[in-house]
Amino acid sequence: MNLTQFRKQYETLIQNEMTSLIDSLAIPVSLKEAMQYSLQAGGKRIRPILLLAVVEEFGIEHPDALKVAAAIEMIHTYSLIHDDLPSMDDDDLRRGMPTNHVVFGEALAILAGDALLTYSFGIVSRLEHVSSDDKIRLIDLMSVSSGAEGMVGGQVLDIEGEEKQLSLEELEKVHRLKTGALLTYSILAGGILAQASAEEMMALSRFGEHLGLAFQIQDDILDVTGTSEELGKTAGKDESSEKSTYPSILTLPKAKEKLDFHASEALKALESLNRELPLLRGLTDLIVQRKN
Amino acid sequence: MNLTQFRKQYETLIQNEMTSLIDSLAIPVSLKEAMQYSLQAGGKRIRPILLLAVVEEFGIEHPDALKVAAAIEMIHTYSLIHDDLPSMDDDDLRRGMPTNHVVFGEALAILAGDALLTYSFGIVSRLEHVSSDDKIRLIDLMSVSSGAEGMVGGQVLDIEGEEKQLSLEELEKVHRLKTGALLTYSILAGGILAQASAEEMMALSRFGEHLGLAFQIQDDILDVTGTSEELGKTAGKDESSEKSTYPSILTLPKAKEKLDFHASEALKALESLNRELPLLRGLTDLIVQRKN
Repeated sequence: MNLTQFRKQYETLIQNEMTSLIDSLAIPVSLKEAMQYSLQAGGKRIRPILLLAVVEEFGIEHPDALKVAAAIEMIHTYSLIHDDLPSMDDDDLRRGMPTNHVVFGEALAILAGDALLTYSFGIVSRLEHVSSDDKIRLIDLMSVSSGAEGMVGGQVLDIEGEEKQLSLEELEKVHRLKTGALLTYSILAGGILAQASAEEMMALSRFGEHLGLAFQIQDDILDVTGTSEELGKTAGKDESSEKSTYPSILTLPKAKEKLDFHASEALKALESLNRELPLLRGLTDLIVQRKN
Repeated sequence: MNLTQFRKQYETLIQNEMTSLIDSLAIPVSLKEAMQYSLQAGGKRIRPILLLAVVEEFGIEHPDALKVAAAIEMIHTYSLIHDDLPSMDDDDLRRGMPTNHVVFGEALAILAGDALLTYSFGIVSRLEHVSSDDKIRLIDLMSVSSGAEGMVGGQVLDIEGEEKQLSLEELEKVHRLKTGALLTYSILAGGILAQASAEEMMALSRFGEHLGLAFQIQDDILDVTGTSEELGKTAGKDESSEKSTYPSILTLPKAKEKLDFHASEALKALESLNRELPLLRGLTDLIVQRKN
């Protein structure tokens, strides 16, 4: 199966898995609707696809992989719901659709985010085909990568960074935490499910770190070079808001060099695994070459 | 050790444990301050004390009990931070101190809450003296009791209930979820740490459910009968906001009968455990007789 087929097939399966996981909850109707709304709003599903690609390329058919993938996408979705709130980024639209708080009100949006985060841990704790030891590894890393030491910490630094000119080092830290941590977690969770060795986990971790930075640099570059139509959101938003970005700190050509560097380091990390890995290589290319 | 000594000793230990757990995190200073601020704001620490009392009365000295107690208090604290937000209850004061968002702003308050919730799961996953199987039991129940099927769901029902007259059944459901679920979890988590049998866990669960309802009914009664000075918050707030409460639905004398009923059922559940349990009996009396 090539990457395009793989993504197409699993995007549907991931969506169905999330829908059924939420549907199975006996909870207030309004809360369920608010949770489902943002999970159904689409997106690239990069994180769950990365997890599933790792499991696939380690030659495993794991009956719980989709559940873990869905849990990670729920964490990503909760973070988007909270980031979009009026007191944070104050975004009314995401992927062309009204954001959660615009549709359901701020209170329910906050609570839907809280519920998605909490449920993610519950989903992992109730997996049927993973040992308790491995569930604990999954939960431990999930907590670190999505909490104060990871994604939440990155969001704090991002908000605080809006008011000042960041150094390259500071900008990199924001991105390592805000997007890199959960992205790397997706890859490592795949490794745990695939029973990767400690050495393989190290290589997957390096892969994730470089891939995460490449992803973010390309995001910054697209904001400068892309059109609003391609992006599905307002192009040039970073520049007009004077936000620190890779192009603004480094110039556009240097930012592109940095993107190539991290993409190449990501591929090197994959090479050290001594496997074919066409899906993970393809995903790396896709992230570098994407137009949105 | 009697209950007064027990509470006094452990209130300090719980506070120290939470402080040191947060201090150990390498996270943005502002985020750390916002998390510590609300954890240090005091309160009755009912949930961690209940957990520790169960462990104590089962005759166990468990080296990880304080950590689990601290994690539960962090979940309770995150829920207060989010509940106080302008889009929810819009409270500027809690226990006489400015609420988290008043001091740190809404964005940081939301993120501090998110971080506390996420960290709670990480704390349990990293316990050193609990088997992976038992950690999974703790995490599974923690997720259910604090998420959409528990506390978060209860908060949604509570918000939606403000706009209408609730039946007694509806009011009870709000409280079972909003306060009862996490309170019962505290007791069950103590049971897990103390290796309680399945039968004992059932009795602890019944105890928690009745204690939780007694706690909430007494809260409603105090709002009618207490003075603002005793309560440390505005008395009569429920009545002036036309909120559905036990006294408003049942009349005050009937609400008191209901309180006695649940307190007595809680004590009956304890009797079935065939142990002395002076601390848990004392906590039940305390909850019924408290003035704030």
